[in-house]
Amino acid sequence: MRTQEQSQIKFLWTLAMIQIIIVGIFFLLGRYDDSSNPKNVNSKHGIERLKYNLNAYPLGVDIFMMLFGGFGYLMTFLKKYGLGAVGLTMIITAVVTEFTVIVIGLTHINSDFVIEVEFITLVEAGVTATSVLITFGALIGKVNPLQMLVIGIIECIIITLNMYLGYKILGANDVGGAILIHTFGAYFGLAVSLALRNQKVELSFNLEEPRYTSDITSLLGTVFLWVFWPSFNGILAVEDARLRCYINTYLSLCSSTVATFVISGLLGNKKFCPEDVQNATLAGGVMVGATADMVLQPYGACLAGTLAGIVSTIGFKYITPVIHRHLRIHDTCGVHNLHGLPGIMSGLSSVLVVLLASEDSYGANLYKMFPLCAPLEGTHALKVLQQQLPELEGGEGRSVGFQALVQLLTLGATLLIAIVSGLVVGIFISIQKLFDTIPDEELFDDDLFWNMPDHDDVGYPERNAGYRRKSRSRSMFNPGLAPEMELNRKMSIVSIGHLNPSFTIN
Amino acid sequence: MRTQEQSQIKFLWTLAMIQIIIVGIFFLLGRYDDSSNPKNVNSKHGIERLKYNLNAYPLGVDIFMMLFGGFGYLMTFLKKYGLGAVGLTMIITAVVTEFTVIVIGLTHINSDFVIEVEFITLVEAGVTATSVLITFGALIGKVNPLQMLVIGIIECIIITLNMYLGYKILGANDVGGAILIHTFGAYFGLAVSLALRNQKVELSFNLEEPRYTSDITSLLGTVFLWVFWPSFNGILAVEDARLRCYINTYLSLCSSTVATFVISGLLGNKKFCPEDVQNATLAGGVMVGATADMVLQPYGACLAGTLAGIVSTIGFKYITPVIHRHLRIHDTCGVHNLHGLPGIMSGLSSVLVVLLASEDSYGANLYKMFPLCAPLEGTHALKVLQQQLPELEGGEGRSVGFQALVQLLTLGATLLIAIVSGLVVGIFISIQKLFDTIPDEELFDDDLFWNMPDHDDVGYPERNAGYRRKSRSRSMFNPGLAPEMELNRKMSIVSIGHLNPSFTIN
Amino acid sequence: MRTQEQSQIKFLWTLAMIQIIIVGIFFLLGRYDDSSNPKNVNSKHGIERLKYNLNAYPLGVDIFMMLFGGFGYLMTFLKKYGLGAVGLTMIITAVVTEFTVIVIGLTHINSDFVIEVEFITLVEAGVTATSVLITFGALIGKVNPLQMLVIGIIECIIITLNMYLGYKILGANDVGGAILIHTFGAYFGLAVSLALRNQKVELSFNLEEPRYTSDITSLLGTVFLWVFWPSFNGILAVEDARLRCYINTYLSLCSSTVATFVISGLLGNKKFCPEDVQNATLAGGVMVGATADMVLQPYGACLAGTLAGIVSTIGFKYITPVIHRHLRIHDTCGVHNLHGLPGIMSGLSSVLVVLLASEDSYGANLYKMFPLCAPLEGTHALKVLQQQLPELEGGEGRSVGFQALVQLLTLGATLLIAIVSGLVVGIFISIQKLFDTIPDEELFDDDLFWNMPDHDDVGYPERNAGYRRKSRSRSMFNPGLAPEMELNRKMSIVSIGHLNPSFTIN
Repeated sequence: MRTQEQSQIKFLWTLAMIQIIIVGIFFLLGRYDDSSNPKNVNSKHGIERLKYNLNAYPLGVDIFMMLFGGFGYLMTFLKKYGLGAVGLTMIITAVVTEFTVIVIGLTHINSDFVIEVEFITLVEAGVTATSVLITFGALIGKVNPLQMLVIGIIECIIITLNMYLGYKILGANDVGGAILIHTFGAYFGLAVSLALRNQKVELSFNLEEPRYTSDITSLLGTVFLWVFWPSFNGILAVEDARLRCYINTYLSLCSSTVATFVISGLLGNKKFCPEDVQNATLAGGVMVGATADMVLQPYGACLAGTLAGIVSTIGFKYITPVIHRHLRIHDTCGVHNLHGLPGIMSGLSSVLVVLLASEDSYGANLYKMFPLCAPLEGTHALKVLQQQLPELEGGEGRSVGFQALVQLLTLGATLLIAIVSGLVVGIFISIQKLFDTIPDEELFDDDLFWNMPDHDDVGYPERNAGYRRKSRSRSMFNPGLAPEMELNRKMSIVSIGHLNPSFTIN
Repeated sequence: MRTQEQSQIKFLWTLAMIQIIIVGIFFLLGRYDDSSNPKNVNSKHGIERLKYNLNAYPLGVDIFMMLFGGFGYLMTFLKKYGLGAVGLTMIITAVVTEFTVIVIGLTHINSDFVIEVEFITLVEAGVTATSVLITFGALIGKVNPLQMLVIGIIECIIITLNMYLGYKILGANDVGGAILIHTFGAYFGLAVSLALRNQKVELSFNLEEPRYTSDITSLLGTVFLWVFWPSFNGILAVEDARLRCYINTYLSLCSSTVATFVISGLLGNKKFCPEDVQNATLAGGVMVGATADMVLQPYGACLAGTLAGIVSTIGFKYITPVIHRHLRIHDTCGVHNLHGLPGIMSGLSSVLVVLLASEDSYGANLYKMFPLCAPLEGTHALKVLQQQLPELEGGEGRSVGFQALVQLLTLGATLLIAIVSGLVVGIFISIQKLFDTIPDEELFDDDLFWNMPDHDDVGYPERNAGYRRKSRSRSMFNPGLAPEMELNRKMSIVSIGHLNPSFTIN
Repeated sequence: MRTQEQSQIKFLWTLAMIQIIIVGIFFLLGRYDDSSNPKNVNSKHGIERLKYNLNAYPLGVDIFMMLFGGFGYLMTFLKKYGLGAVGLTMIITAVVTEFTVIVIGLTHINSDFVIEVEFITLVEAGVTATSVLITFGALIGKVNPLQMLVIGIIECIIITLNMYLGYKILGANDVGGAILIHTFGAYFGLAVSLALRNQKVELSFNLEEPRYTSDITSLLGTVFLWVFWPSFNGILAVEDARLRCYINTYLSLCSSTVATFVISGLLGNKKFCPEDVQNATLAGGVMVGATADMVLQPYGACLAGTLAGIVSTIGFKYITPVIHRHLRIHDTCGVHNLHGLPGIMSGLSSVLVVLLASEDSYGANLYKMFPLCAPLEGTHALKVLQQQLPELEGGEGRSVGFQALVQLLTLGATLLIAIVSGLVVGIFISIQKLFDTIPDEELFDDDLFWNMPDHDDVGYPERNAGYRRKSRSRSMFNPGLAPEMELNRKMSIVSIGHLNPSFTIN
């Protein structure tokens, strides 16, 4: 395990340097915005933003709980990577959130060269970190902290630019980030994984699998994600649109949960598969991500969730093994099934839902949902609408057909950018000399990066197990037992005799 | 374990069918209400409901966390039913919530035959699912998913009707659902358990008991329930009534926690019993359920919680074993002590608190708390009150004595309906041919319904342990090893050899 | 283990008595305040407080989750004290919260001798309980419930008085309680530990250490504390000050998380230490506690968090062992590093931040942040300010320099009071005859106070492990097996035989 010392030294100093740079940039450019600046908070803009940010706080807390508690614990299913799952989730989230506050700030830096930091910026940065954690989900156990740090820092820049492209330039609707966060993070991660294709996870001695207790802590992550997902989908919406996000997301989640149990049982020899229940139950949250604020009606939300649960569960059973075997893309947590496919389906469904949108179903609020579809400033049509909805602003006069096309374009662009940039980053972080990649026999093992509880601890059965496993595997490579192995073997026998005394040593 | 394949096939197809029916009904009848319909949200009713629903959201999230995280993890105490505890909680909650949205909708379907779905409906459906989860608490490990699905679907219809009877027809006060949710769910579950009376849980090889680590994950459920209970009791109240719900519930919970530790230690040989701490500490939340919005004053809330903690802890020690031994009613989680008895006590205490209510202690707000006690529309008395409280509406002119009687009647009716319907449902789901009931030796075992982590996994000690335990205990009944046991023993040796291939069997 | 029966009897009856006293005092003096009293809620004061309290509720819930879920689970890292960690956290929090409502009430009892209980009082009491839980963190595993109860009851009185001194008499700024809660709790606990200096924790057979799975449940506590900390720091602030609390706290936590990983790796042989990640990552929350509502700007918050993470991690590695070895102060959870040092640093940084405060950076809001710095009532200066900020009230005309001095004074007074009172209490609870202190070989063991899952349970490996561990380590002290050890050895064999009766030793 000596090899990782080099990568860790690089990781620690890189991380330190990044933190210094962050503090430096904040010192030079970062300042509170009006809502948290006591000097300006009494201004009209300050009061308005203050109200907005205070209202957003409970949802922001939910989202941070999804990051730390949700993603962190969901990934603890690995029998010997629980510290890595929660711990690395913490450090990734922390550094990416800080850094993305700056990146986002730079995309709307004002004329005084000031990065305005308001509470919602922190949450948006956290949402971006979600995408990095999805990528982490594809890679967990196979990349070292140094690689993940480099991935995270580069990825959050690309995500922010892609979000700028999607939300600002193209004007896409994606309230819950199904396209711009979930699809991006999943395919970026899969592309990185593709670049790591020579890894032989089979040599990891089943460390890729769960224990009974780790399956139960993993479900805790599921619970956090399930319960708080409506906050995630709703934070960027306001008023009745936010309320629809809540309703659509909960209904969709209920439906994907039901569908997951059905399909998991049917495909799993009539028994439920913990992996499906941990993950595919959540697919409904992704699936309505792009459309959560739109008029889906209860049946639409349920239908979407049902489909997502079905596809996601099938993905875990059939698609993940196939892309691993044939494309050599290994996906540790199956993010392709939870975030990738449902993300694409959400994007496609948004095309349909936008196409069906009309004043008939939205009233004048159609133009609040799709602001670029509002008539141009100064037109008579706008004035008529403003009689119903005085706060309405002029748009670009887009047709819903055009807006639907924009949805498709955004999905396509996101996939392209995610895969290409993921591949480039993946090839970069595969450079053995620079990143000291983890040897195949050491994958999925907390031991590499954590000072673990005492090895002699008999209360820690994995320990001896791990010990034995390694003995076995080494002997596979070096036929003929080394002298210390001989000793190990004897100890091992004693240990077995102790565990199962009915055994007779002749 | 082959037997459960039949029940699982039925479960999966029934579940699929229910989901299709739900989506179908939503398609035909279900639509957003005014607050989430962008066309109507600007109406007076829309704006009002929008505000109400957005305000309810944080409490709704807390309640869903109680369902998934609270009930789910509380039941993980069973050493080998953790996946069932959390997983089945998820599927029950999901399907019951969806379905109950429809059932509730049908009880106030409007003249256009539209089921209006608003956010609070989802939460109310979740609250109903609470009751089903309480029932599940009495039955967990002993019924298969098919049985539990049928129980849940039938139960949530009966609960909704009983709530309609209690809240609408009788006009009872039960803000936290102590009577209509907790008492109902507990006695319904006990009645089902009574119908299953021939089950011999003694044959389950101690799988009914906790492990050290499962006791600790179970406490997580306790923590979620404790912390969020004020949201549960408060969601149906508004303004100062909601604030009283918060205060009364927290004080009552503090008191039941204190009382539980005292009694648990006194009855438990001076040591605390984890089961008591996991459950009886929460009895204070149930105990003030029916009265949480009333003027209990701090001492009243504390007194109520103290009593509940005492009774609940005594229940775990003495009542549960007695009803198991003498009535053959087995109660896995002891819901009788946490929800049943405290629910009845809450109902009875509401009789007292209502009797003591007067304008002296509530002012004109008395008639907002007990709207049916307000004077009839058009009377002089009402007009006088409306001078203080303009929004007050006319009631039925009930006396508090009559209202107290209504409380008692509601409690009695709930008990009767719960027990009778529970028995009927219990007898129904006991039909072996239809439901393929679990054999007594296979109770409390995740293995029946879950694809478990690999059996060879040495990091999973319960597995071999379970094997050995069963061998031992079977041999208690059948002295002299049966032939299949001989085979098992050999397999055991092979299995050890497999774990450590360097091992030689001489 | 017989010895603790005596202490438990005393504990149970003392606890019962305290509960009776609490209910009694509430009966005599405690009443709802205007906001929860339906008779007075329509008054101006009632409406105002109602709004305030309803707004505070989501933050209050977060804080109770920090108490039960955060502190409770953080302390589960001990391999055999998980029930004690969560369970004793529950009882301490419950009884201290109830009791402190009364103590706080007595400090602002009104002329009618009524203790007004409003929702925020419960939360303030919960915040006080935080301090007691910090103290518990220093002592967990080494004091029995009786000792901890006595500590808690005395400590919460002293804390309340110290808070009265700090907030009311001196007028210090400490919005997140870094000085008055964290520093106090930590040094009080260390002082008690100093008084227990003769304890030999080395005799505890490594029970002071974590298991792999207990490290993972402990991280759950970290997650709860991290995510909800902004609510803790923000609850006493309002408007833009509350918003700054949120922003500063999250940024500071991100930074302390980053710093912790860097330093933990550098000091830990390039591997991360779970203990650091569980604790020092949170130091940023304490570090901005005294200044969270002030204008730190993003770089200030990040700098503060970075420093806190560095110092805290160094503390775990170097300071805790040193004060244990040289001062014989044992600190189970390392609260000195998470709450003590960062608390002092927060107090000192508040001196600096207050010194730098000016109308230049705060505008007229300077005097809302530091109300005692506002000009005296009736002065011209005040009137000028009131033109900008009509709601501003007159203060004492303090200079910021004076206010900075007050910060320093508050820190000094807190340290002095905490250490002296902690020592006195520590000496008191060390009286063997009164408190039946835990023998050194029985420390950190749930077995003393909990009815544990069945000892024969092979699914519970710690049990036999503990047994064996003790045998082994006793023999270290008594070379040559003592007669009872001989017996133990035989029992051990019998016990194995019992597990699998077909056992033959050839």
